[in-house]
Amino acid sequence: MKELTDRIRTQGKVLPKGILKVDGFINHQVDPQLMDACGREFACLFAGLNATKVLTAEISGIAPAVTTALHLGIPVVYARKTRPVTMPDIVLLTTAPSHTKGVMTELIVSPEYLSASERVLIIDDFLASGATIMGLVRLAQTSGATLVGIGTLIEKSFEGGRELLAPLGVPIVSLAVIASMDESGIVFVGD
Amino acid sequence: MKELTDRIRTQGKVLPKGILKVDGFINHQVDPQLMDACGREFACLFAGLNATKVLTAEISGIAPAVTTALHLGIPVVYARKTRPVTMPDIVLLTTAPSHTKGVMTELIVSPEYLSASERVLIIDDFLASGATIMGLVRLAQTSGATLVGIGTLIEKSFEGGRELLAPLGVPIVSLAVIASMDESGIVFVGD
Repeated sequence: MKELTDRIRTQGKVLPKGILKVDGFINHQVDPQLMDACGREFACLFAGLNATKVLTAEISGIAPAVTTALHLGIPVVYARKTRPVTMPDIVLLTTAPSHTKGVMTELIVSPEYLSASERVLIIDDFLASGATIMGLVRLAQTSGATLVGIGTLIEKSFEGGRELLAPLGVPIVSLAVIASMDESGIVFVGD
Repeated sequence: MKELTDRIRTQGKVLPKGILKVDGFINHQVDPQLMDACGREFACLFAGLNATKVLTAEISGIAPAVTTALHLGIPVVYARKTRPVTMPDIVLLTTAPSHTKGVMTELIVSPEYLSASERVLIIDDFLASGATIMGLVRLAQTSGATLVGIGTLIEKSFEGGRELLAPLGVPIVSLAVIASMDESGIVFVGD
């Protein structure tokens, strides 16, 4: 998606240890017009899947997941990293390694909002190792729901996430796919 | 706003210790159509303030802040509760007591995205004691920015937040104002 790759090219910054900083428009400051355009694109690309729910992980997945769900006309559930007091005693919980924090993070969903009848579309900001998304997949599978697709804003194609997720047999779409990057620049697939 | 109060009436649940559970449409599962309608309402109510940035706190402020910013055509910044590796060494940081967790929470904003020239509109899900919003106010003030307004989805009018924030001298708008609530029901101001 040209609008997103252009923005990453001009405002993304490659930090040491393979971190791509996109804090100016996705991860801390959010450009709502860009997120809305990405949501519209996901809704268009996944229109035929008859998804009934968007599933994402807090925190930075929320903005693109909400705009995608808005354009699909379905609810979004974001997995919590800590269990709030409002959740029931029995929850769906898995753990996944955090890419940027180097620790294991919990992903928690209330069974009130994820059930066997759902057709789940996962939306997140990054596809890197795929560990967080695989955690969301486990939550969906445990609830008995059907996973129908996976969409991410930015894929780092050299970190193995697509290979991890491919056996799931669902469409995996990223709006910007990075072939390689270092402090001298970012190369997208298709450049 | 009738659409929001109707939803709270039918799907909100009063838990012990004065907790209002709205996990089915705001805080865990999100109704994007409702959030979009709330964002449109805030954008309309605050249209004359010439805000240049929406400021909120992760996590549950993000959805209404993004839709408000979308309708105002300005960016949104969400204060982080942990400092990500992508932030610069010097950040704006304050602490505020968490209403539902009973602990002090950090609120962190990068000075890259909040500067003295900004006109800041704060949007959050709840106005209860006002402590989190006052934390956001301190961040805006420390950056030298001008606070122009405060909008929340749900105000618990009996927890003192409005009295705490009133001396700031900016418009404070809540889309649903609860006069009283207990396990038998919720009464809104204007009922």
